[in-house]
Amino acid sequence: MDITINIGLKSYPVVVGKDLLNLLGVKVSQLGFKKVLLVTDSNVGPLYLKTAKQSLIKEGLDVAQITLPAGEIYKTVAAIELIWEKALESGLDRQSGLIALGGGVVGDLTGFAAATFLRGIGFIQVPTTLLSQVDASVGGKTGFNLRQGKNLVGAFYQPQAVIADIVTLMSLPEREYYNGYAEIVKHGLIIPSSGLLDFLDENKDKVLKREATFLTELVKMNVAIKASIVTQDEKEKGLRSLLNLGHTAGHALEEIGSYKTYYHGEAVAIGLLIACSIALERGLLNEKTYLQVKNLLQNLNLPLRPFGDIDPKIWWEKTFSDKKSASGIVYWVLPTSDYQALYGQKVDFAEFRKAIASLRKGD
Amino acid sequence: MDITINIGLKSYPVVVGKDLLNLLGVKVSQLGFKKVLLVTDSNVGPLYLKTAKQSLIKEGLDVAQITLPAGEIYKTVAAIELIWEKALESGLDRQSGLIALGGGVVGDLTGFAAATFLRGIGFIQVPTTLLSQVDASVGGKTGFNLRQGKNLVGAFYQPQAVIADIVTLMSLPEREYYNGYAEIVKHGLIIPSSGLLDFLDENKDKVLKREATFLTELVKMNVAIKASIVTQDEKEKGLRSLLNLGHTAGHALEEIGSYKTYYHGEAVAIGLLIACSIALERGLLNEKTYLQVKNLLQNLNLPLRPFGDIDPKIWWEKTFSDKKSASGIVYWVLPTSDYQALYGQKVDFAEFRKAIASLRKGD
Repeated sequence: MDITINIGLKSYPVVVGKDLLNLLGVKVSQLGFKKVLLVTDSNVGPLYLKTAKQSLIKEGLDVAQITLPAGEIYKTVAAIELIWEKALESGLDRQSGLIALGGGVVGDLTGFAAATFLRGIGFIQVPTTLLSQVDASVGGKTGFNLRQGKNLVGAFYQPQAVIADIVTLMSLPEREYYNGYAEIVKHGLIIPSSGLLDFLDENKDKVLKREATFLTELVKMNVAIKASIVTQDEKEKGLRSLLNLGHTAGHALEEIGSYKTYYHGEAVAIGLLIACSIALERGLLNEKTYLQVKNLLQNLNLPLRPFGDIDPKIWWEKTFSDKKSASGIVYWVLPTSDYQALYGQKVDFAEFRKAIASLRKGD
Repeated sequence: MDITINIGLKSYPVVVGKDLLNLLGVKVSQLGFKKVLLVTDSNVGPLYLKTAKQSLIKEGLDVAQITLPAGEIYKTVAAIELIWEKALESGLDRQSGLIALGGGVVGDLTGFAAATFLRGIGFIQVPTTLLSQVDASVGGKTGFNLRQGKNLVGAFYQPQAVIADIVTLMSLPEREYYNGYAEIVKHGLIIPSSGLLDFLDENKDKVLKREATFLTELVKMNVAIKASIVTQDEKEKGLRSLLNLGHTAGHALEEIGSYKTYYHGEAVAIGLLIACSIALERGLLNEKTYLQVKNLLQNLNLPLRPFGDIDPKIWWEKTFSDKKSASGIVYWVLPTSDYQALYGQKVDFAEFRKAIASLRKGD
């Protein structure tokens, strides 16, 4: 069953299931598109571009394609310009659509290009990584990085549909597959009734085997959580900032690693532990839940600490370049024992340093 | 009295009058801003940046500034990048605002930068040319040019306020001043009850003298016309396309002149005459109204024909690169004798060629 996302005056379906790439043409055609530009990257293109394209052509769609270089370091305005140019060259007009076939980077770039080309054309998300299926493809955040930081430029732009084919998760390299789980653990910590952390604990073997029914269920649970938050607060005036749990320290860490050292989920996993450690120290989180999170992350092959030594002062300062900082103040999200995180929390450097130090314990 | 524009879920004032630059600080402060980036260009900066800045500083605002090179050829993504960089460097956050101090190019660039920086921050228009006061600053179209054509990338993004100081019109060079009148004549042709063309006919001397009370009235009339259209159709699904009267041939002409030969209003004036000529030939427009428009444009120092010979075939083909072309079809707007233009009109090459030939007559 599709999940419907109602946001602002719009509404769109998120379809999750097996072998959906073969149905892409039917879905896109139903949305009324005649001409589309398929945007993918050098990792995903060789695996799925052909299937996606054939499915579209079979339904009589006029299909152009562009393959971008893969990786967060290419999430720049230069990539956006390539998409705009290709869209022009392919004769796309205001009735045409862009289809993002790939992970979060492809989705964010394609979404921004769709939001701005001719002041806005159609957009369909086909996320192919676990991370983008459970998180990035839902909610309408699009954009790219400046050299000063991540996602500093962008637009809120909702797709007409999200089509998540579980089959694409089978081909993910180990590191990329587990990369998706940090946001899942995060979701488990912000919605009290989700039961998500227990669900993960109970299905360790299915995580490992990438069992399709389990993954379909897991992606749906996460889409539902994300949807419930973004539909209440599209433009991040309040509630939506809960989704930043683990991201204050995480984004800073990614920046320190020049977006190369850490995958997003890896940085978020470490960021989650820092937030948990601060919350533990404040008495918001009990030892049991703290250990549950730590063990879960470990079981999910996610790092529990940075790959090398980082000066806490430098790390701390990097947290201020995050775009959520309102007039120099950085608000943190902190978890609680009842899985109901709190946003708008001020944290001082002493707490942060102590939390970093605690990451080294228990080796 | 301010004109209020209600668009989508938002509403914002357009303030028109004398010496408003001195009140800029008060207005911006009332909107709740603490930190702003003033964006201007190398033409307008030397004349008005100091006054604007002092007015803002006087109200305790934290003010950064950037001066872009002036001219349509600099309306590119490179200019947008300069604004983003400056905004970052100046520590702007989501509570900050960008202020566009200048003509249409500065307004479009600044608006797009505001729409996308941190996924959208505050935006105030301070149009300093007649063209931008009567047209570009109202309606929320922002964006920039690609080498393939004008305004191919952009966003619909409404300002929090438009502040039009009539005094800035006094310093406009002749050519730039009259450049604003083509859109005014266009407005007179699309709203039957406006009386705008007669108003212009009756006030020739005040046009020439740039009489402040007359100009205030004129700008207000035009803002009201534009507002009445864009509030009914923000995203240009139908009615708003009336505003493209004169722009099909006009945009093509600007492109042929590489955005250097013709000012926007000059190209639109010629485009208006072509549309009028086609409408005359079809019997939509009578000879009397046709001549009224032609004489008005002439009195307003606007060109009645291109500055050199242009191959009609090349000009025709350029009309198809306009972004409004839906799947290869270009819809024209044609005027009628009761000043109520029709949109969605198909025109063929023979008609277009004949209209171009008619521009040469009556020398």
